[in-house]
Order: sequence, then structure tokens, then C-alpha cells
Amino acid sequence: MSGSIYGKMFTISTFGESHGAAVGVVVDGVTPGLELTVADIQRELDRRRPGQSSVTTPRREPDAVSILSGVFKNKTTGAPIMLLVNNSDVRSKDYSALQRLFRPGHADFTYVKKYGIRDYRGGGRSSGRETVARVAAGAIAKKLLAARQIQIRAYTTRIGNIACQKYLPDAIEKNAVRACDPDCAADMEKLVLEMAAAGNSVGGIVECRINGVPPGIGEPVFDKLDAELAKAMMSLGGIKGIEFGAGFKAATMTGKEHNDEITCQGFVTNNAGGILGGISNGAEIVFRVAVKPTSSIALSQHTIDVDGNPVVCETRGRHDPCLCPRVVPVVEAMSAIVLIDLIKQQAALSA
Amino acid sequence: MSGSIYGKMFTISTFGESHGAAVGVVVDGVTPGLELTVADIQRELDRRRPGQSSVTTPRREPDAVSILSGVFKNKTTGAPIMLLVNNSDVRSKDYSALQRLFRPGHADFTYVKKYGIRDYRGGGRSSGRETVARVAAGAIAKKLLAARQIQIRAYTTRIGNIACQKYLPDAIEKNAVRACDPDCAADMEKLVLEMAAAGNSVGGIVECRINGVPPGIGEPVFDKLDAELAKAMMSLGGIKGIEFGAGFKAATMTGKEHNDEITCQGFVTNNAGGILGGISNGAEIVFRVAVKPTSSIALSQHTIDVDGNPVVCETRGRHDPCLCPRVVPVVEAMSAIVLIDLIKQQAALSA
Amino acid sequence: MSGSIYGKMFTISTFGESHGAAVGVVVDGVTPGLELTVADIQRELDRRRPGQSSVTTPRREPDAVSILSGVFKNKTTGAPIMLLVNNSDVRSKDYSALQRLFRPGHADFTYVKKYGIRDYRGGGRSSGRETVARVAAGAIAKKLLAARQIQIRAYTTRIGNIACQKYLPDAIEKNAVRACDPDCAADMEKLVLEMAAAGNSVGGIVECRINGVPPGIGEPVFDKLDAELAKAMMSLGGIKGIEFGAGFKAATMTGKEHNDEITCQGFVTNNAGGILGGISNGAEIVFRVAVKPTSSIALSQHTIDVDGNPVVCETRGRHDPCLCPRVVPVVEAMSAIVLIDLIKQQAALSA
Amino acid sequence: MSGSIYGKMFTISTFGESHGAAVGVVVDGVTPGLELTVADIQRELDRRRPGQSSVTTPRREPDAVSILSGVFKNKTTGAPIMLLVNNSDVRSKDYSALQRLFRPGHADFTYVKKYGIRDYRGGGRSSGRETVARVAAGAIAKKLLAARQIQIRAYTTRIGNIACQKYLPDAIEKNAVRACDPDCAADMEKLVLEMAAAGNSVGGIVECRINGVPPGIGEPVFDKLDAELAKAMMSLGGIKGIEFGAGFKAATMTGKEHNDEITCQGFVTNNAGGILGGISNGAEIVFRVAVKPTSSIALSQHTIDVDGNPVVCETRGRHDPCLCPRVVPVVEAMSAIVLIDLIKQQAALSA
Repeated sequence: MSGSIYGKMFTISTFGESHGAAVGVVVDGVTPGLELTVADIQRELDRRRPGQSSVTTPRREPDAVSILSGVFKNKTTGAPIMLLVNNSDVRSKDYSALQRLFRPGHADFTYVKKYGIRDYRGGGRSSGRETVARVAAGAIAKKLLAARQIQIRAYTTRIGNIACQKYLPDAIEKNAVRACDPDCAADMEKLVLEMAAAGNSVGGIVECRINGVPPGIGEPVFDKLDAELAKAMMSLGGIKGIEFGAGFKAATMTGKEHNDEITCQGFVTNNAGGILGGISNGAEIVFRVAVKPTSSIALSQHTIDVDGNPVVCETRGRHDPCLCPRVVPVVEAMSAIVLIDLIKQQAALSA
Repeated sequence: MSGSIYGKMFTISTFGESHGAAVGVVVDGVTPGLELTVADIQRELDRRRPGQSSVTTPRREPDAVSILSGVFKNKTTGAPIMLLVNNSDVRSKDYSALQRLFRPGHADFTYVKKYGIRDYRGGGRSSGRETVARVAAGAIAKKLLAARQIQIRAYTTRIGNIACQKYLPDAIEKNAVRACDPDCAADMEKLVLEMAAAGNSVGGIVECRINGVPPGIGEPVFDKLDAELAKAMMSLGGIKGIEFGAGFKAATMTGKEHNDEITCQGFVTNNAGGILGGISNGAEIVFRVAVKPTSSIALSQHTIDVDGNPVVCETRGRHDPCLCPRVVPVVEAMSAIVLIDLIKQQAALSA
Repeated sequence: MSGSIYGKMFTISTFGESHGAAVGVVVDGVTPGLELTVADIQRELDRRRPGQSSVTTPRREPDAVSILSGVFKNKTTGAPIMLLVNNSDVRSKDYSALQRLFRPGHADFTYVKKYGIRDYRGGGRSSGRETVARVAAGAIAKKLLAARQIQIRAYTTRIGNIACQKYLPDAIEKNAVRACDPDCAADMEKLVLEMAAAGNSVGGIVECRINGVPPGIGEPVFDKLDAELAKAMMSLGGIKGIEFGAGFKAATMTGKEHNDEITCQGFVTNNAGGILGGISNGAEIVFRVAVKPTSSIALSQHTIDVDGNPVVCETRGRHDPCLCPRVVPVVEAMSAIVLIDLIKQQAALSA
Repeated sequence: MSGSIYGKMFTISTFGESHGAAVGVVVDGVTPGLELTVADIQRELDRRRPGQSSVTTPRREPDAVSILSGVFKNKTTGAPIMLLVNNSDVRSKDYSALQRLFRPGHADFTYVKKYGIRDYRGGGRSSGRETVARVAAGAIAKKLLAARQIQIRAYTTRIGNIACQKYLPDAIEKNAVRACDPDCAADMEKLVLEMAAAGNSVGGIVECRINGVPPGIGEPVFDKLDAELAKAMMSLGGIKGIEFGAGFKAATMTGKEHNDEITCQGFVTNNAGGILGGISNGAEIVFRVAVKPTSSIALSQHTIDVDGNPVVCETRGRHDPCLCPRVVPVVEAMSAIVLIDLIKQQAALSA
């Protein structure tokens, strides 16, 4: 199947450009009989929505979702669920100055090389707006997981050189940067606003913890749980790396240090990040993703235009100075989609 | 399709346990008319073979491959190519002491939870021996890529606390640890042997560079080039993380620093690692994977047996004290498989 | 992937119930740069539209399609194309009497058994209305094929006991039943109207001829050209059988009679129906499908309700007394989708 | 995935040419814990084996199967099961006269057009020998179905102009042509031997009945139960058509005649063939396939060689004069594979 489709037994098929008529997703394979309303999906979309706080782009999109199929009397029927979000605040004129040049850090250049066509409207399909579809589909996955007592929680642990020292889950949704350490949150917010004022941007790290996954989830060899999570995360626009459990630190550890010993009470440590041999081991699943600084900055940069001539690029659109806060719900959504798909695959295997 | 199959248009289907009769792979979708002999595949298998150097397990497997189908008169016919490697040096008795306990760091526990069955022969399907199939299939992918002037080169850049400072590609295959910096290689080898002597093991980092990929390869949204590479690498037993280009360092950078400016001569820097929006940009593709220390160590560890009783585990099998040198050809093989599959998908899109 | 998705490299993902808000399809993998307007798609939808002639249901649906993504300045961009058709003439009250019983010949019973849920609105997902999505997607496939000089033409060859004796392609779209023999068309139309007046329905046969397919299209073993066409046709609601070339007549033939001899000018006969070993041979592709009589009839029938009690069913909805005329564009659409997908797979194989 | 792979959750990946080293299959997604021995698979292979009776080719292949992976102590482990059958009686010299011409009715011509390569050894991949892999994999599927009380039984109902009038299941395996009517069997056998003596061949019809499938199996829209069965059957070399229940007779029926009324005891008739809306309805599943006369005949035929010159073809190989008896176990095997795959998909949907 083509590249805008993900999942074997819980399949999402996404569409829509940032400055086209709409974005959306068809979700197929949803367990029938699940209670589902627009509010369930809107709640997650609102967490990813632009304009929700001081540190996000002022672009205002209500991102109101409609359910066009697959739900009858507030219950899923087992038929494909079509979720549609119309694009409302589309200022294509913002992009007119950019339509002939390749913005550094963006996919403008590679899309032209791949498709031979230039859709210059705000990144088109490569825009972060594409994640609306993921978050909408993820809201359904999350409901299915919640019924199994599985909770997914992502949050910011670093922005630039400011790193969280504590993990206080209740703090996350109470600060604008979605940091897990409330003592850092104000400094992080300040840093982001300074970057915005300077026409610059900044990177960070988002961590995700998943609790309640029973042992045995994940397919061996290629479709390992960590492999699918890695694919899902790396398929997000601004992600440059992912690590599980001890992650890159494992490179400097010995086997004696890294192996998680086992007692009757479970694993003593969690360097594995909850996954052994690609299969969940019942411990908390933990991974971190590297979020690059937003590519759209107001500072002038050297680039070339579609004819290969050198030009100066100054992006005047409205953009997030740091992607982390809005990446958080997307990371959760993709985690939920990966998990429910693998849980369904496990049911198929056992049948 | 099930979890031991990878690829859409260049599809590999693997099988075999470490201590079963054989391991192998069916490769479907191979371009017809390619010259292919056993030697092409054997050459790559020999790079991954146990017992090839001072730092690898003394387990001796000739790993002689047979081509059972899909090749006629030394040319691929377009039919599935079956590559079979019989297991010869199978000392199941080595494992008899382990058959009732869950080795720390291994998939013993999760396999039992998933399948409800214990195949205790050396890790069965979760063993690193499964990568024989990947390397064999990758040898075909490499030949197809070589015809397109695409080169893939992986190598060790770190073992424990010893990190390479130079990149000398000609040095890689000349030292036992496959380090890219010959000045580090001797120290690395010494460290690995010390670890082995101590019954311990050590982690490291393997980097991979791919040259010659034309811009435009990679599918947008889910099947991005970096997403597929991440899945492929994370599907390898001992890998705990992956990063592209600037990778996790991007978290501390600003957009102005991170964006790769473009001139008529190409990209000025390569923080992107050769991929923008999930699509190759024509620059060198660069990524690094975190390799955990080998889980099998001789030092005693606490664990439980299949009945949940606490026991002490001392693995007496023959194992690599550091996975990096033998991970190198596997990383190359998986990279090749990912690339040729996406190149074929691009041909389908354009058609 | 789930059951509402078809195609590997040209992938369609459909959604929508007959009496829900809308029906539609996401088409992924479309060659970029193709000229495409709403009119291209509307033209095909108008051929399948209810209310278009004396012999189709009086249910009036304009079936006006919108393109929500994947097209920029009337050209395909390579991104997923979302085609949406709102349902306008939804008289759910027509179905209120039926909501507790299982209509004979319909999927009411099996959907409840499968999903445990009753969506009683006009058949929901199992309604023929689902084919709107197929015809819309097929219109894009047809345009891609037309650029390769491939023509697909389906038509009615039998209704009840009236069978066409001639093949006059120009006559097909000029008679209400889309028969290929204009001398039969009036009798066929009369028969259909008599059936309607009697509250009954009648079956028929639709034939399809495809010209211009180069030899070499179709994947061996499972994804043979005829196997994929058979799946595509049998996936249509009212189809009970399919045969290629000589079809069931081959059962009574000898090899000497059935084999198509070959000369420098090509195949002397076409008992193979243009396909050998699952691969197109360059001759005209010919197949026929058996169309069952419409299940919805006004005559009273014995059935049971959701509680298992015997009841009498009298369907009062507005339905086609014979499916053939409206099956014709759907057969063409599915043929086009199968062909372009296999053509793209062949491009991938050769690459 | 490529064309030699079938199934989503029960996936088979086949390989091997008729005159190559071996044929075989990797079966992935098999429920762990199933008892499985070589004998289970050999039993089915023996039913398809050449040389088993008066009416089959004298080519003698013991077709002895080995299980190379996925089974431990006679139980499936959940890992891919590799089944290998070496080719023993390979007389390539039989084909030397044919290597430069295109045999009528065979895939020689289309394979060359597709692949640009001529593998002239007895049809290579397009040979009926490829079905060894299907029957071997089907034996596993059958065991899984048997545990669910699902029985599949195929048999010959017609050879040339001799049609069975009775259905006596116990008779099937007791006559050489596997006819369901013992009163016809002797005449059928005589006809087949006459055809063989004349250097000719003859077609027939094979019917299949499946009992015990619970209602609710089959995915709506594209992956309907009948659509998947049709694809599976049409993917067999010599099959030219398929029909379910009333089949092509439905074309001449009215809705009142064709609809199966329902009572508390179940469906009164079975024109649907056990499938409504693509989903099993609990009644017996019934379908028939049209089997073409064997393409390999000794009678001389006109054809062309690889240079396009007219030549006369006289096939001297050893071939079945009628395919039906040996198609029977293959039809059963493919039915079993389709069913278990859809049963597993249903488990995933419900999960």
C-alpha cells in the first residue's frame, strides 16, 4: 500500500495539504461497539491545535472535526471511520514570496525532486498540519487502549540546554511547554519566546511513557514493538532520532550494568525500556525522541530558487518557535496507533 | 502480512531458529536479469560469520549459502530467490542448563508470554543468528544498488568510552572491530578482549553512510526514508536507538544553526543527514545506531525460572563480547533492503 | 491492511454508508502531473448514478463529487486524492419497518453476526452505494490508462433469458440497459420494467473487454491479473461468478480445441481471454460476471427478525429491478484500478 | 508485498521452479501450540503427487517434505514454518526441444514478455508444480480449521461432457478422478485415458463445499470471503472461472427465486452459496471452478519461436491428460488458507 497508509489490522489512511481544503483520515479496523463521539476526538485535536498558548503559532485553526462514517448512535459499527477537518485560516498569500525558492530545512527541494511538481502552499503535504489526521485517528486508538487500562503520556524533557530534572506527571498539561518538571517550565517558556522574538527557533526532547501494556505485544523480527514505534516517530516531520530505555547511553555500558535482572516482583531496572526482543515485557515502555528546531525562521538564510539561482530566504509565515509542546499529543497518538495495531495482530496470531 | 516479512516491492520473508535445522530467506521482487552467484552472497555472509576474528564468538559456522530458486544460468529470473543456510555447529547441550530460566536482557521471558511456548535452544528465533537471512537478502539488494552507483558503508565509531576521532573508510575492514579510526582500533580490541576475559560485555555505536542515492527517494508521511531505516535498524536485536544527521544534538540547536543552507553547489552542511521531509536530498545519508552490550555474559545474575522462582543465571554459551563488529554488515544489509524497496516504490509512483 | 482498502501501489481506501453523511475514497499512489478535474470524475459517477434512466431506482442522488486534496492547479501532485460525495436523498424512514428483520438476500444477518451491531439504514456499508467510491477512484485510474492507450468497455450481454447475439460497442451507452446488441435492448428494457411492476427483479450477465494492455502485466502465483480481476469483481455486492475467455465452456473442451495457437500475427483464437499464466498476452482481455437479481423486492418473503421470530418481509425502498446497467461502470472502474496497480507493480519489478 | 506472497495474518511465501532444486513455502502467523508433524503435511502432498493413479502423469516425484523451522517437539512455536520439497525426477532434457518456442496455452510467451528472460525448464515458476507449496501450507491451515470443526471437501463434478448426478462424499477418494458420483467415475476415467492415448487433454469442473464456518467470517468491501476465495482459485494455473451458489444460473433467475428465505431453522435454500455481503452466513459454502484442458498435449500445434518464426510444437513431456483429480487437493488447500486468514482477521477486528 502507498505511503500515506499505516497499520495492518488498525489501518489509517491520511490525506490533505496544509493549505488545501481539508485534512483528514479514514480509520479502518476499529473494534465495533466502542462508544465514540466528536468530543472524544476534539479533545485530542485541541491539545495539538495552533494558537492554544503563548508559545505556539498564532495561526488560528479551530480544527473542528466531523465524523462522516463508521459511527451509528455514538457507537462504532466496525466500518471505516472518516474524520474530516476543514482548513479555515488559509492565508496562501503568506507563501507567495516563497513559491519559487527552496526553504532550508524544509521538504520543498525533495518534493520537487520526487514529484516534479511544486505545491508551494505552506509545505503542502509535508507540513506539520498533516499530523491533524494522526491525532484524530490516535484519539480512537487511545479509547480502545483506555478500555484495556493502557495509558500513554508524552511530555517535554528538554528545550535547548534546559533539561528537566524531575518527573511530575500532573504538571505536564499545566505549563505551556508541556514539561514534566514544573521548575523548568518557566525558563523553557522564556527561552522559546526569546527565540521567537529573535526570529529563530530551538530544538528539544520529548519523552513518552506507556503503562499497562501486557507482556507479549510486538511481532518478532521486523515488526518489533520498538521497530514500529521508531518508524512511527521518525515519520513525524521534525524528529531526528529515537532511543528506548537506556538508549544511546547503552553504548558506554557493560552487559552486567545494562541487563535488567529479574525477581519475583518483576524487573529490577528498566534499561530495556519495557521491550525485550521487540516484545513488551510488562514493564513501563519508555522512549525519547529528538525534536529539531523549527525549520521556518525569520532570520535570513542562503538558498536557491527553482531555477538554481542563489537567493535569500526570510520566512514570514506564522510558526512555532519550538515544536515540542505540540509534538507531545502527536507522539501519544502515534504510540496509541502502533500499540492497538500490534495488540490486534497478537489476537490474530493466537486465534 | 506477518512479522517475519519486510518490504513492499522488494520483499524478504525470513525463517529459521539459531539451533534449528537451517536459517534462510525468500527474496521476492528482484529485478530480473541481474547477474547473481553464490559468491556474491557468501562474501557478505563471511563478513557477519562467527569466528572470523579475535573479538567474535568462537562458535564456528561456515554459513555456506545455497540458492534454491529464482536464478537460472547465473541470472535472476524475476522469481522468488530462496537462500538457505544450514546450521552446522549446533551444541544444544550448551543451553540445557538454561532451558528453565529467563536470561536477563534476552527475549526468553517475552517469547514465553507471547507464544505460551518455550523454545529454549539458544534464543530460537530471537537469536542474532536470524540476521543471516537479512545479510543474505541484503547482498542481492546491494548488487542492485551498486548498479545504480549507490554505496553503503557502516562501521564502528564507539565501543564503551572509546570514540573514533577520524573517518578513514579504508581502515574499516582492516581491523577486528571495524572501527573507522585505525588509531582507536587497537584500544577498542583490547577493551573487548578484557570484557570477554571478565565474563562481561560492552556496548557501542555503529554509524552508516550511504552515497549516491538520487534525490526523491522515500515516501511521504508514514513510509519516509528515515522512518523505514529506523524501523529496519530497531528491528535488529541489540539496537536501542537511532539518530540521523545532527540527531539528538539537534535538541540543543537553534533553527539558524541546524538548517542546512543551499547553494548552487548543494547543501552547505548536512545536519539533516541527507533526508528532508522523509525524502533523500542527494546529500550523503548518515545515521548512527546505539548497540547495547551483549546480553549473554558469564557473570552471575539474578533472575527467575519458568515457575517464577528466583535463580542465578550464568550463561556458558559462546558469545560475542561486543556486537558492533558483526552488526556492521547487518546494518549495511538492512539499509540496502530499505533503499531498493523505496527505489522500486518510486518507480511505481512515477509509472 | 483492513478490508476497505485495495491496491498495493495504487491504493484506494473507501468509506461511507448508504444512509450516512457521505461516501468517498482516498486514492494514494497516483502518478504526479496528471491533469485531473472534477468533471473527469463526475462523468463516470453520472454513469452509475441512480435515477438516470427508466430502469434504475427513482432514488435521486446528484452524487456531486468534491476533490479535497492531492490536486493543485488541476494537476495531481502525487499526494493522496480525497474524493467526497455527500449523501443527499436519505430517506431513512423507508427503512424503519425493516430495522428489526433480516432481509433475504441481503447482508443484514451476516453484518449483525460479524459486528454484533445493527446499522439498519439501507444496508449501511453493504449497500451498493459503496460503489460510488470505486467509480470515483476508477475515474482516475481510467485517465492514467487512457494515457497508455488502454480502453476498458463493459456492457450487458444477458438479462434473464434474453441474450445478446451481436457486439456493437457504439450501441452500449445508447440504450437504458447498456446492452451491446441494440436488437435486444428494447426487449431487455421491457423485461426489466415488467419485473419492477411485479415487485420482482431479474439477474443478468455483464461482459468486459480491455484493449491495449501490453503483454507482461500481472504478477505470477497469487497476484495474477485474472486473480486480481476476479477478486475485484467478486468484491462487488451482487456478483456470483466470473469467467475469463472460454470460461466454464473450457470444462467441455479438449486441449487441442482450447489452446490458442500462435502465428506471427498473434494469437489465432482467444480462449485464454488475453491472459496466460496470470500475465497479459497482448490480446484482448475478456471476462464475464454473473449478476444476481436484486435482493430488494416488493413481493413478500419469509424471514426472521433479530430475535429469531418468523416474520414476513416486504421491502418498500426504491431499488433497481436489474443491477446490470449500473454494474457496468463499476466493472469498468474496478478493472481500471486493478490494471493500473499491476502496471505500477511491473514498473517496480523492472526498476 | 510481492506476488508470491498471500495472506495478511496467515501469510504464505512460496518459491521454487518445476525443474529447479526445490519448491517450498514459508508459513508465517501460525497459531503457536498446534501439534504438527511431517506426516500431517505429507498426507496432503500425497493426494496431489504425480504418479498416484492411472490418470495422472507418470512423472514420479516422492515429494517428501521437510520442516526446517517453526516446529519444536512436534508443536508449532509461532515462528515461521519453512516447508521444503526437493525436486528429484527432473528430466530437463525433455524440454530441450521446447526451449526456443512458445507452447500454446502456456505462459512461456508472457513470462518472456514480463521478465525478458527465458527459463525454459518445464514452465519454471508457472508450472503446476508450484502448487506443492500451496498444498503444504494448506495442510497447516486445515489442521487449524479442523480444531474449529471446519471441513473442506473438493471433488470433480464434470470431465468433458460427463457430469456427476449424485453427491456421495465417501466415493470421492475411492476413484481415480475424484468424482463425487461413483456411477460416473469409470466413464470419466475412460475418457481421460482415451484423451491421453490420443495425445490430447480434456477440461472439467471441480466443486468445493465447506462446512462448519461460523457466520461472520469475511471482510466487507474488498476482502470479502467470496472475493478472496475467487482470487485464490483464479491464482491456480488452469482455472478459467469460478461461481458461488447458484452462480451463473443466477443470471436467469428472479429475485423471488434467488433470495434464500430464512426460518428459525436457518436458510431454506442456498443460492447464496453460504455467503451474503461477502460474509459467511453459517450455511454450507459452495463454489465451483472451471478447469481448462491441460495445455501440454502431444498433438502438433502451430506456434512461433523466440525469434517470431512459425514452428510446430509437439510437447513430449509427461503430463496429466485432465487436471481435475490433482486440482482437488489444491482447491482444498487454498480454501483453507483463505479461511484461516480471514478467521484471524476477524479475531483482530474484535480485539
